[in-house]
Amino acid sequence: MADKLIIFDTTLRDGEQSPGASMTKDEKIRIARQLERMKVDVIEAGFAAASDGDFESIKAISAIIKDSVVCSLSRANDRDIARAAEALAPASRKRIHTFIATSALHMEKKLRMTPDQVFEQAKLAVRYARKFTDDIEFSPEDGSRSDVDFLCRIIEAVIKEGATTINFADTVGYGVPELYGSMLRTLRERIPNSDKAIWSVHCHNDLGMAVANSLAGVMIGGARQIECTINGLGERAGNTALEEVVMAVRTRRDFFNLELGIDISQIVPASKLVSQITGFAVQPNKAVVGANAFAHASGIHQDGVLKARDTYEIMRAEDVGWSANKIVLGKLSGRNAFKARLEELGIALESETEINAAFMRFKELADRKVDIFDEDIIALVSDEQQSHENEYYRFVSLAQHSETGEKPSAKVVFSIDGKEASCAGQGNGPVDATVNAIESQAKSGAELLLFSVNAITTGTESQGEVTMRLAKSGRIVNGVGADPDIVVASAKAYLSALNKLHSKIDKLNPQL
Amino acid sequence: MADKLIIFDTTLRDGEQSPGASMTKDEKIRIARQLERMKVDVIEAGFAAASDGDFESIKAISAIIKDSVVCSLSRANDRDIARAAEALAPASRKRIHTFIATSALHMEKKLRMTPDQVFEQAKLAVRYARKFTDDIEFSPEDGSRSDVDFLCRIIEAVIKEGATTINFADTVGYGVPELYGSMLRTLRERIPNSDKAIWSVHCHNDLGMAVANSLAGVMIGGARQIECTINGLGERAGNTALEEVVMAVRTRRDFFNLELGIDISQIVPASKLVSQITGFAVQPNKAVVGANAFAHASGIHQDGVLKARDTYEIMRAEDVGWSANKIVLGKLSGRNAFKARLEELGIALESETEINAAFMRFKELADRKVDIFDEDIIALVSDEQQSHENEYYRFVSLAQHSETGEKPSAKVVFSIDGKEASCAGQGNGPVDATVNAIESQAKSGAELLLFSVNAITTGTESQGEVTMRLAKSGRIVNGVGADPDIVVASAKAYLSALNKLHSKIDKLNPQL
Repeated sequence: MADKLIIFDTTLRDGEQSPGASMTKDEKIRIARQLERMKVDVIEAGFAAASDGDFESIKAISAIIKDSVVCSLSRANDRDIARAAEALAPASRKRIHTFIATSALHMEKKLRMTPDQVFEQAKLAVRYARKFTDDIEFSPEDGSRSDVDFLCRIIEAVIKEGATTINFADTVGYGVPELYGSMLRTLRERIPNSDKAIWSVHCHNDLGMAVANSLAGVMIGGARQIECTINGLGERAGNTALEEVVMAVRTRRDFFNLELGIDISQIVPASKLVSQITGFAVQPNKAVVGANAFAHASGIHQDGVLKARDTYEIMRAEDVGWSANKIVLGKLSGRNAFKARLEELGIALESETEINAAFMRFKELADRKVDIFDEDIIALVSDEQQSHENEYYRFVSLAQHSETGEKPSAKVVFSIDGKEASCAGQGNGPVDATVNAIESQAKSGAELLLFSVNAITTGTESQGEVTMRLAKSGRIVNGVGADPDIVVASAKAYLSALNKLHSKIDKLNPQL
Repeated sequence: MADKLIIFDTTLRDGEQSPGASMTKDEKIRIARQLERMKVDVIEAGFAAASDGDFESIKAISAIIKDSVVCSLSRANDRDIARAAEALAPASRKRIHTFIATSALHMEKKLRMTPDQVFEQAKLAVRYARKFTDDIEFSPEDGSRSDVDFLCRIIEAVIKEGATTINFADTVGYGVPELYGSMLRTLRERIPNSDKAIWSVHCHNDLGMAVANSLAGVMIGGARQIECTINGLGERAGNTALEEVVMAVRTRRDFFNLELGIDISQIVPASKLVSQITGFAVQPNKAVVGANAFAHASGIHQDGVLKARDTYEIMRAEDVGWSANKIVLGKLSGRNAFKARLEELGIALESETEINAAFMRFKELADRKVDIFDEDIIALVSDEQQSHENEYYRFVSLAQHSETGEKPSAKVVFSIDGKEASCAGQGNGPVDATVNAIESQAKSGAELLLFSVNAITTGTESQGEVTMRLAKSGRIVNGVGADPDIVVASAKAYLSALNKLHSKIDKLNPQL
């Protein structure tokens, strides 16, 4: 029988570390539910010691997720591990993932510790973690640039202490498949008790080879767990993309001969959800989940596709969850139909009050937009939950006008800590005028780094989803807002970003 | 001495085959100039027999480009080859690239030819092409799924006929590095005259492994040419990304030990130019050229970066051409300063009339926008050249208004074939109202597939660049428009897409 390949998703931990991708607890819960629906084996829900927000998110996800193992990252010290254990306490299946840097460069420049100190700390950390669970993962950070002798020594010791998964991290995306796979094999061959642990790969895509490096770690190195994220989200060029690595193993089953537990029909819904929540758009020419991934332009080619589907298609769009936009609800749909659709989409609102609030927003939207698609409902709930959680600034209404030859102007009404403020502004365009109007009251002084709009569905009557990335005093946040009117969506996105800046969560993001 | 690795860019041929990425002659010339500036070895400028537009583009590029080899694709028949030779006639260094499918599936289902017929046609094609140039490339289409014995037979024969480059195509992106590289090695070992040709790789990214497959073709298979595109543009998930494969070879010089001619400081400018012209946005977590590729979020990590740059950085942003936005021109800049900046950006306008028209647009923009950046100039010239080439529909002016509780409305004035039309519309939002207004006169009935906006520079006073992808009767086009007012930019993008639909170029896009 073929070996099982464990899919370890770290969208909520490493993915969230992308500048601007931070998520609220409710957003993380929605993604975790989708990951469980997709039958991901392990969900890394966060890094409990990073912030109170991270701790609460892991705790909430631990209480909700039943089928997947829930995991928290922690540095190799008792305080971090105890905090992780506490957050994971409600989980039916839990994993503590502890890490410490092992490359000479990182030990010397970052940790300022000797190899012997690192060795001792790793051992003690795993020993302590075992008090809370039998499922312990250990990662040598910057593993691919570490000394092999030292890695052998430290990994043998942590396996002896009870580490059940060893994750060989290519932290800086420096790996080349052949070298990365061979180094992993060397470690497994030289470490006497290596067969007592499952080996894992964790790759970054800085040189465009994260998927191939991961698979070389599996095929050459003998790893049986891959760490990855939806849409390849993650710092810099991101992590191994779940959708790519899963579809590679599945499409080339003849070569890889590995079992996967993933329900691939949930891949595109997961991609859309993560993109909508984080505001990280997926480029059209992205494998599997890009808008073009299954689109064919060329004449010869289309002819080929018509003559035999296999000539150019190695995967089927519908298998990974691509489907035509479906009109799901309209103006006359009632509260029950709306609630039922929420459930089908896997959106669990906490209380009747929340469902009522979301339903009211739905009716408002249906007044302005004839056909309501699943994507609209997801955006609406996202919007609702956002304003629910951080309501320091809240959008009320907007009027704007632009005309060739005149200076564009906007009037915005929004509430600041419950108190309504009315303001006006001018600018280069209606969005600039709107932001200037808001700034005349909010006075954040934040800098706009990125601005993007994507239509949620096809057609000009689609809602626009705006992402605004703001920077202030070294912090970077993404605000997301959706509305059929893109100027209104921009105002919402700007206020949402201001709310995130206002929340002042100071968070520690460890790097793997 | 290390071997030279030849970089063959096919942005203008395979990249342009992405649905909606079709480019005008002037746009192709601008990209070709940038590729030459980047010191790309071979520029595949198009497929001469595909359309008159392609033929003219290749001819124009052949006359302009001096340092790079200019190449045209052609099917394996005399008519195509003669057409390619004619288009390439002005080139100082020219290559004819001919191809034919060799997999059983493609020969049977698409070509409806026997292997013997394919064999004869390939031989005759290369023999005929040799009449025009000594630099002949041959590609067995769907090579990675073809029978090895048949490949050996046909490749040996075309090398005998004078093919100087053999390109092993993974047409459907089905390859896995180890298998793809080994298959190439087998071919080179078994074909007696294989050393008479340079071997090339051409990979697609459907399973996220195009870069790794290309490099396996080089390291395992012995290829010395890589075919790639800027931003990994190309059908479906696209081709091997030039920026990734080049930076992998350069960053891991220790492993690859290959010489590259590329000026990597031109990578980011090339990426921005291609994205701006085609309307294909680059996602933030894209390696090398994504907005996040060099951004660091995590606390531990930033600390690490501060302590020693090498802890997390394997490449330097400034080396690949990332730089802060620079204010280059303002309201008071004169015609000479503008012209000088155009030259520094490598934008060569054809005539004084064109420079004057662009300068007028610049003055208009400077009236509305205080600081003018390089990106604004690129957008402005792009806009100018577009309207210059296809001026059936032309934007004149717009007034729009939206207000919470009211139906958004727009009035648009635009010219149809030189005659001004004034129209009004309502919609869900100002963009929908604008499109409805235009459609009330243009009556295209096209369907909007994708809508996206990206800010050209940072700051809310940035111009917005809108991409609208329209579909009509099976044709897909992207329209791009830039303006500080995103509703105006949307109107321009919509009219630009209508112009492309109106131009009715019916083009043959062969698949490799």
